[in-house]
Amino acid sequence: MTETPTPSFLFDLDGTLVDSVYQHVLAWHEALETCGIGLPVWRIHRRIGMSGGLFTNALLRETGYEVSPEEREKLYRLHAEGYARRAAQIRPLPGAKDLLDHLTATDVPWAIATSGRSVSARPTLAVLGIDIDKAPVVTRDQVRYAKPDPDLFLAAAKKINMPIGQALVVGDSVWDLLAARRAGALGIGLLSGGYGRDELERAGAFRVYEDPGDLLRHLYEVGVRRE
Amino acid sequence: MTETPTPSFLFDLDGTLVDSVYQHVLAWHEALETCGIGLPVWRIHRRIGMSGGLFTNALLRETGYEVSPEEREKLYRLHAEGYARRAAQIRPLPGAKDLLDHLTATDVPWAIATSGRSVSARPTLAVLGIDIDKAPVVTRDQVRYAKPDPDLFLAAAKKINMPIGQALVVGDSVWDLLAARRAGALGIGLLSGGYGRDELERAGAFRVYEDPGDLLRHLYEVGVRRE
Repeated sequence: MTETPTPSFLFDLDGTLVDSVYQHVLAWHEALETCGIGLPVWRIHRRIGMSGGLFTNALLRETGYEVSPEEREKLYRLHAEGYARRAAQIRPLPGAKDLLDHLTATDVPWAIATSGRSVSARPTLAVLGIDIDKAPVVTRDQVRYAKPDPDLFLAAAKKINMPIGQALVVGDSVWDLLAARRAGALGIGLLSGGYGRDELERAGAFRVYEDPGDLLRHLYEVGVRRE
Repeated sequence: MTETPTPSFLFDLDGTLVDSVYQHVLAWHEALETCGIGLPVWRIHRRIGMSGGLFTNALLRETGYEVSPEEREKLYRLHAEGYARRAAQIRPLPGAKDLLDHLTATDVPWAIATSGRSVSARPTLAVLGIDIDKAPVVTRDQVRYAKPDPDLFLAAAKKINMPIGQALVVGDSVWDLLAARRAGALGIGLLSGGYGRDELERAGAFRVYEDPGDLLRHLYEVGVRRE
């Protein structure tokens, strides 16, 4: 009889485990306005979760703005400052801690892979009670390309010594799901980042749940048996 | 030959003409937190645009919280204060002013119908250069029930003496589109409030555009001829 492999989980962070997407969105909006770049908030929301470089490139290209390398660094700095100012509002998403605790207790390997740099991932992880230096976390600084490239999830699977082909990628944005498919993993979408269900399904989610708690209640649907 | 009637337009305000949805969402999040009610931000986003009463009822029912009439008044007050603090960030959506100017210049009647109370609608309209006391605007204070009930759009059509059956309701939320159908009007969805396209189509939008500017460029699709 063939042994059915137990999957591992590779989680996105913002909007997937932590309720921080809208604060990121408004921090970007503020940073762009400060640099004289007016963009509607929903367009920023729809780009969130991409690599910061792709994110700014995509938004600027769509709108015809051009920025110098210095302005780009200023944008990153202003966004990080604006996000830090909003950090006190950030909460774990419902069920996030329970889900990670349950996976740990049942020996299902997991890791976190975020398009954010360690400077903004550190306080966000702290909201979950996770120490970035101890937990299996891969940040944007550690890979060449961020989402929708597959590098972050490939590095996260390697970090926990699990084959990417049996990994389940969990994310709230289409960029997570595109990266999952390019990595050869199955993607699970969560609505908790504010995207619509069909956007996630059309990006290749093989299942969509509301938030981490909803995924925890339906783990049996994605291959985690409770003996 | 039958005369084809020129349609009139009934606009929602937040997320449809003005880029204010995400600020409203975070102002509600803050107000609820202050009252000890923790709700994920995306759930608040998905309820925005409803009547404030239905909005709080729906959110509280879903989460099992109960609030007294006094606490409800406190919530409204805290939300209004939090929104006022964010008012400096509010911008018109792309094309909003041009669209209204074009309709005015071509004698297409229009009005604005918002689930917001006049106290928060006044500064939001000012962003568009619209004086609430002079323009055809109906606010939540002037009707018994707000969206998704049809009262606001019925009152707006009456205000400009146009038959509701030939009116086009333009909104960014499913509540606008449900209210449009109950009123007997056609609904046009805009993505600029951050809902997904399929959410708007499934709520009955007969056409979906990105923002007011995109609608302006496609007015001929919805019955406004440029002679």
